[in-house]
Amino acid sequence: MPFQRLRLLIAYDGRPFRGWQSQASRDAVQDHLERAFLKLCGMPIVVHGSGRTDAGVHAHGQVAHADVPPKRLPPSAWAAALNAHLPAEIRVLRVRHVSADFHARLNARRKIYTYRIWNAPCLHPLELGRAWLVPGELDVQIMRAAASMLTGTHDFAAFAANRRQPPGETVRTIYQIRIVRRGPLITLRYDGSGFLYKMVRLLTGSLVRCGQGRASPEWLGALLARADARKTSFAAPADGLYLVRVLY
Amino acid sequence: MPFQRLRLLIAYDGRPFRGWQSQASRDAVQDHLERAFLKLCGMPIVVHGSGRTDAGVHAHGQVAHADVPPKRLPPSAWAAALNAHLPAEIRVLRVRHVSADFHARLNARRKIYTYRIWNAPCLHPLELGRAWLVPGELDVQIMRAAASMLTGTHDFAAFAANRRQPPGETVRTIYQIRIVRRGPLITLRYDGSGFLYKMVRLLTGSLVRCGQGRASPEWLGALLARADARKTSFAAPADGLYLVRVLY
Repeated sequence: MPFQRLRLLIAYDGRPFRGWQSQASRDAVQDHLERAFLKLCGMPIVVHGSGRTDAGVHAHGQVAHADVPPKRLPPSAWAAALNAHLPAEIRVLRVRHVSADFHARLNARRKIYTYRIWNAPCLHPLELGRAWLVPGELDVQIMRAAASMLTGTHDFAAFAANRRQPPGETVRTIYQIRIVRRGPLITLRYDGSGFLYKMVRLLTGSLVRCGQGRASPEWLGALLARADARKTSFAAPADGLYLVRVLY
Repeated sequence: MPFQRLRLLIAYDGRPFRGWQSQASRDAVQDHLERAFLKLCGMPIVVHGSGRTDAGVHAHGQVAHADVPPKRLPPSAWAAALNAHLPAEIRVLRVRHVSADFHARLNARRKIYTYRIWNAPCLHPLELGRAWLVPGELDVQIMRAAASMLTGTHDFAAFAANRRQPPGETVRTIYQIRIVRRGPLITLRYDGSGFLYKMVRLLTGSLVRCGQGRASPEWLGALLARADARKTSFAAPADGLYLVRVLY
């Protein structure tokens, strides 16, 4: 059957959903998108994301593809049509036609995430579910020094959650980690070839431990070199994490 | 009875509450604060805000005062103690002792509000309840030209909601209206001596009409000069409005 491949740019507030990936309970972001396509096309359509995001993780620029019956709608009309069938916490920002060899996950070559930390005695009410409250002193200079040990191509096995990850497939490249403070808000921007399961949250949790003086950048380096066989388990909560952009 | 006057700096997400001002239903921000004081002091304490904000309006820096029994708590301990009895959508950011002649409403001499407009085909999910979606073209240059007619000391009777406002008490001074666009986000920053009931929302609604080409800056000027006896009724929704700062 002929079909037209669509490329979707999607934003969501992660709080109401069980992550990106389709769940038996059908309340993941992917499930909502597939229901919208079912209503518009009258047939089941699978939506392929660039990768999963966990429950509570937000997205400014998730990318996905889906194959639809051709000439169903002009590309410009798809976003509004899908949005009419989606909860307000999910919005399709843009849709365009792509050739059938575009694959949202397999072709992704770079991803950008941000992580937001609220460094103050209490969480600002408008940051609820959107930032991680870390009270007490946090030394951004030390965090930057520690982050610089993470950039480059490394085996990040120590920063993957306990999930069976094929050996030798835990090598990733981090191009840059930029850490910016603006008042109580510290934003960490991760730019890399890809990230393992919970890797950004584990990296952030470890960098915060360095910034608190509870661990040293050398500890981080040792973890990375796997001189220390243990994994880190200081995962930052989902609330502060945003998938910002996927590059192809 | 001797008392100690406290000055409070308060932030809130306006969505869950019926505005600032105490309600019979006891679900206004003021009600929550007074309940927290009752629990801490074992007696009813009235909280006086710098002014009311409507249901759905947010605050980064509302100011209030309250008289408490002296030596109940050191000033540094009040914020954490109050926050322990408040919903997470309300946070006391700072508390300090002030002399008994400080009055949060009567001494306020300047207020800063911001209004956030999301100018795109659909509202970003992370802007739900936090910005006003205005799709279609919006000419920021024209909005700035219109805003410049509003600055200075004027009788803003045409920009007060239909509420009995004593004649001659509708004169206010707007020091500055700054309009900044960053991608789809247009932020209007109002700096003035004070604002009438719904005035910032009515000003914003009118500026947007100018930006859409549906009204001219001259129309705004005429309204202000009361050459046109009608009031404007284009109120922007509460969602995008933030009380940022009160100056004394």
